[in-house]
Amino acid sequence: MTDPARLSFDIATLHGAYAAGLSPEEVIAEAYARIEAAGDRGIFLHLRPLAEVLAEAGALPPFDAEAMPLWGLPFAVKDNIDLAGCPTTAACPAYAYEPERDAFAVAALKAAGAIPLGKTNLDQFATGLVGVRSPHPPPKNAVDPAIVPGGSSSGSAVAVARGLVSFSLGTDTAGSGRVPAALNNIVGLKPTLGAISAMGVVPACRTLDTISVFALTVPDAWAVFRAAARFDPDDAHARPIAVPAPSAPPPVLRLGVPDAATREFFDDGAQAASFDAALARLAAGGAQIVELDFTPFYEVARMLYEGAWVAERLSVIEDLLESDPGAIHPVTRQIIGAGARLSAVDAFRGIYRLAELKRRAEPLLAGVDLLCVPTMPTFYSVADLEADPVGPNARLGTYTNFVNLMDMCGIAVPVAPRSDGRPGSVTLLGRRGEDALAAALAERLHRETAPVLGATGHPLPATPVAAPGPGPGEIAIAVVGAHMSGLPLNHQLTSRGGRFLHTARTAPAYSLHALPGGPPFRPGLLRTRGGASIALEVWAMPVARFGELVSVVPAPLAIGTVELEDGTSVKGFLVEASGIEGAEDITAHGGWRAYLEAAEAVAG
Amino acid sequence: MTDPARLSFDIATLHGAYAAGLSPEEVIAEAYARIEAAGDRGIFLHLRPLAEVLAEAGALPPFDAEAMPLWGLPFAVKDNIDLAGCPTTAACPAYAYEPERDAFAVAALKAAGAIPLGKTNLDQFATGLVGVRSPHPPPKNAVDPAIVPGGSSSGSAVAVARGLVSFSLGTDTAGSGRVPAALNNIVGLKPTLGAISAMGVVPACRTLDTISVFALTVPDAWAVFRAAARFDPDDAHARPIAVPAPSAPPPVLRLGVPDAATREFFDDGAQAASFDAALARLAAGGAQIVELDFTPFYEVARMLYEGAWVAERLSVIEDLLESDPGAIHPVTRQIIGAGARLSAVDAFRGIYRLAELKRRAEPLLAGVDLLCVPTMPTFYSVADLEADPVGPNARLGTYTNFVNLMDMCGIAVPVAPRSDGRPGSVTLLGRRGEDALAAALAERLHRETAPVLGATGHPLPATPVAAPGPGPGEIAIAVVGAHMSGLPLNHQLTSRGGRFLHTARTAPAYSLHALPGGPPFRPGLLRTRGGASIALEVWAMPVARFGELVSVVPAPLAIGTVELEDGTSVKGFLVEASGIEGAEDITAHGGWRAYLEAAEAVAG
Repeated sequence: MTDPARLSFDIATLHGAYAAGLSPEEVIAEAYARIEAAGDRGIFLHLRPLAEVLAEAGALPPFDAEAMPLWGLPFAVKDNIDLAGCPTTAACPAYAYEPERDAFAVAALKAAGAIPLGKTNLDQFATGLVGVRSPHPPPKNAVDPAIVPGGSSSGSAVAVARGLVSFSLGTDTAGSGRVPAALNNIVGLKPTLGAISAMGVVPACRTLDTISVFALTVPDAWAVFRAAARFDPDDAHARPIAVPAPSAPPPVLRLGVPDAATREFFDDGAQAASFDAALARLAAGGAQIVELDFTPFYEVARMLYEGAWVAERLSVIEDLLESDPGAIHPVTRQIIGAGARLSAVDAFRGIYRLAELKRRAEPLLAGVDLLCVPTMPTFYSVADLEADPVGPNARLGTYTNFVNLMDMCGIAVPVAPRSDGRPGSVTLLGRRGEDALAAALAERLHRETAPVLGATGHPLPATPVAAPGPGPGEIAIAVVGAHMSGLPLNHQLTSRGGRFLHTARTAPAYSLHALPGGPPFRPGLLRTRGGASIALEVWAMPVARFGELVSVVPAPLAIGTVELEDGTSVKGFLVEASGIEGAEDITAHGGWRAYLEAAEAVAG
Repeated sequence: MTDPARLSFDIATLHGAYAAGLSPEEVIAEAYARIEAAGDRGIFLHLRPLAEVLAEAGALPPFDAEAMPLWGLPFAVKDNIDLAGCPTTAACPAYAYEPERDAFAVAALKAAGAIPLGKTNLDQFATGLVGVRSPHPPPKNAVDPAIVPGGSSSGSAVAVARGLVSFSLGTDTAGSGRVPAALNNIVGLKPTLGAISAMGVVPACRTLDTISVFALTVPDAWAVFRAAARFDPDDAHARPIAVPAPSAPPPVLRLGVPDAATREFFDDGAQAASFDAALARLAAGGAQIVELDFTPFYEVARMLYEGAWVAERLSVIEDLLESDPGAIHPVTRQIIGAGARLSAVDAFRGIYRLAELKRRAEPLLAGVDLLCVPTMPTFYSVADLEADPVGPNARLGTYTNFVNLMDMCGIAVPVAPRSDGRPGSVTLLGRRGEDALAAALAERLHRETAPVLGATGHPLPATPVAAPGPGPGEIAIAVVGAHMSGLPLNHQLTSRGGRFLHTARTAPAYSLHALPGGPPFRPGLLRTRGGASIALEVWAMPVARFGELVSVVPAPLAIGTVELEDGTSVKGFLVEASGIEGAEDITAHGGWRAYLEAAEAVAG
């Protein structure tokens, strides 16, 4: 039997051990032993009694990872999220209350088989990115205790990085689900706003908050997100967001990055080099790096604490601030208290300004599939924060503060360590609802750079890559031309929830023709006696949006059935035989991409 | 030649006269003669010099209603919308400025051939529903001068109702584009927020404002809306909204109406009876009336003036209110000045509350296609407003104030006059982007109740009924075989919400082939040089269900584009050329039904 003390708590490893006969009670006991051994009283603010948690583990139905994808996984909950039986304090004892029920997300995770151990430390009222703005001792950074642990979700990040739990819940308004991930060498998934219910969460900025997920690997973070992201009609800010099965990233992706003039590392050359290395790795994997002027994003970022949204934080603690100001951390009080000077006119002017900046950023975002940024520009020590409790905190948010204001989603993912051994991390950012695309690329990058997991010393587990196929409610469609990734009509797929599945080739029974007209230049695929095998991409489309796509396909193209090399068939683009009159037969190129490259070589 | 003095200025009538040789200069001269004869100096705050407008009319290219759908139509512009060459005052002389260019929407209308005559009176800063909150004399109600003209778009509504212009622009935040329409017996179209650019408009509540359209008929209002609704990337609040060609409403629609407990007429029995009669008429036309508890809508309505959004109005005039409070109408000053007492926390609390109420209303809206409400609960006289300048105004907004806060669109449409001769009006309200559905039903209701146009005495012009087409959210699809009505696969259409539109024939460019296999026996349609015209049926399918249909179409069939005999094209079933090997060419039968009948005759 496996020795639980030697196990990584990632899902693949634990579920492998469970399948081999390990009991969840053994894992829970090991988790508590690790917490004891860690000797850091700043991580958990409240730990459930071991006996109670063991009883819960023992009451699980037989192991079945299909039915309960989080079966037997110990997890931690940031102490601004309700866990029935534990007080919710938001790291402010005077604010504490005893929740009657679990937060919606916690209940969903428990229903998926996960086992909560307790509540973790945070920057009070989730206001901060450093992890030291708490009346409790701050948790020590898992990688280097001189560095700040990061916040506001400090305890949740450290608990995962030290291998005490399989995953944890944080929250993220300014970057609280990403910065601590980068500081502790783990994955931090910040979902699209509204994807996870906020019921049972102490708000920071109610219009900008989301629960976030810390995990050791991207598939783990995604599994937790899938289990937690159930539409909750009782949450007025909830939105239905599709959370499909994980899939590979498309072979070509356009990645927007800050250009040289707007890339900011505050003179940290090692961080700059680490980011360059990550971009080089992404480019080697097929990404097209697009340099963007990040000025509009930084202008948005500044609005979070300098603008009207501080009043949202004030709305949460207004009564306490009046009745017992001393109960609030002095730095927190200073920051949030500033909201009292803002008028409703200020609030609306902020909202107008944000709308303008969002509109100004739209053309930048329209030219790329994702953004890639350093998760943070540099590192700060605990001593730095003691010397200046506000400045370093603000600088840590350089690449995170704008994200929720712009209604984007993101995932912070470790990359190879920096030259000085500190953890490397980049964040991939997508538009609202594009969580799956960001996670797919993050997973590949994580696998390619393969850092150790957190501070555990464990390597990334080998994960069997499932053959990607369409999920429920999706239909597979073969695209052979301008709808392929990186080409001009790809947005007709991605804007309708399409996701890349895999590349493939047709059965050797087709001809390919460069159609007259354009741009966009398009080929036509025709089933032909004695034809060839043509390269294509297979995408998954939500059936409910597929009709829209079909409706914009112009003659002589049509949606029919395409036979693949492996003998299976999928829906796909065809051309009417009468439509290839005057078209160049480009079958010999074997595909549209090869033809474009040849044409470009000739033109060049 | 037609006598312009006897013409209704609706588009059908004017364009008919233009086609018959009337000149736009004659119409402009007649418009100015009517303005003079009306003798109401409260309508226009600024009228352009006749010579200048005549020159503009003379400079139009030759009449072509296809190229310029608003060719030669005189219109009026509410004086909070920029018209180059005229000051913009928002009915506050101290606020006046000289715009350098036309508002985006005005420019779009001029590009479509329309001719602006001048600027119209309004409740100052578009704050009011009555039309008497202006330093200028209020325009007289077109139907009954004792009644208030309605506001805030008072002058624009009266100008249309009196037949001085073909249409006019208003704005609508609380109901300023609907209440004056009801009071003056005309159509008031309030688009989805963001459909028409707000560039060049003095804001009221920037997050809740839209330009609106007054016209004599629904097709007229729709034509103006189509011309004005161009996406404007310079307007941070603009959103791309589809504005399709007008079509008939679907045969069955679920209409949500206030239930007995929440229907409010302030004891005006004639208004209650008029609403009942309109609902009876709609029900007779196939509408299913669904009674709803309107409480959540009324709670939202109250937030507009009692809640945080007053601060939006204050943000516009804050400087003026400080430097020269006497320049502002006392009632306006009282209402907007209240915004100064609101904090940013108040603003966000209002935003949270609105989100909750919207969420609460969602299940109500999910059960219906449109809402139908009285445009206003009752009438008020000028004397009523002199006695109480605030209360009657608030009551007039009963059925309008919630609409923009809930991100809905609507159209106020005249119905048969009330028992006392006052104009009847209901408003059809749709979700964001469902403007076309609301307009389609409004058009049918207007035609069925056929009141006179405004106060002009002219009847509703006979409008040629267009061939039935797909409605909003639908796509037309040509079926040539087993999917036709009465044949074995027709249920694949009907079970997915498909509805029959009409029969048709292809362009003479297709061959038809009886495919091997079956049952079900199926033909294949192939575009062929020297082909024939093939009989088919055109159906409308909901786009959201169309993908399912495409997904069950087996090879060698495909969904492509079919050219019809009249030169138009629709999506439709085709066959791959490689799929007709071994198939019988049945083109000579001219269609699948004829082939089946012939085959049956042989078999019998």
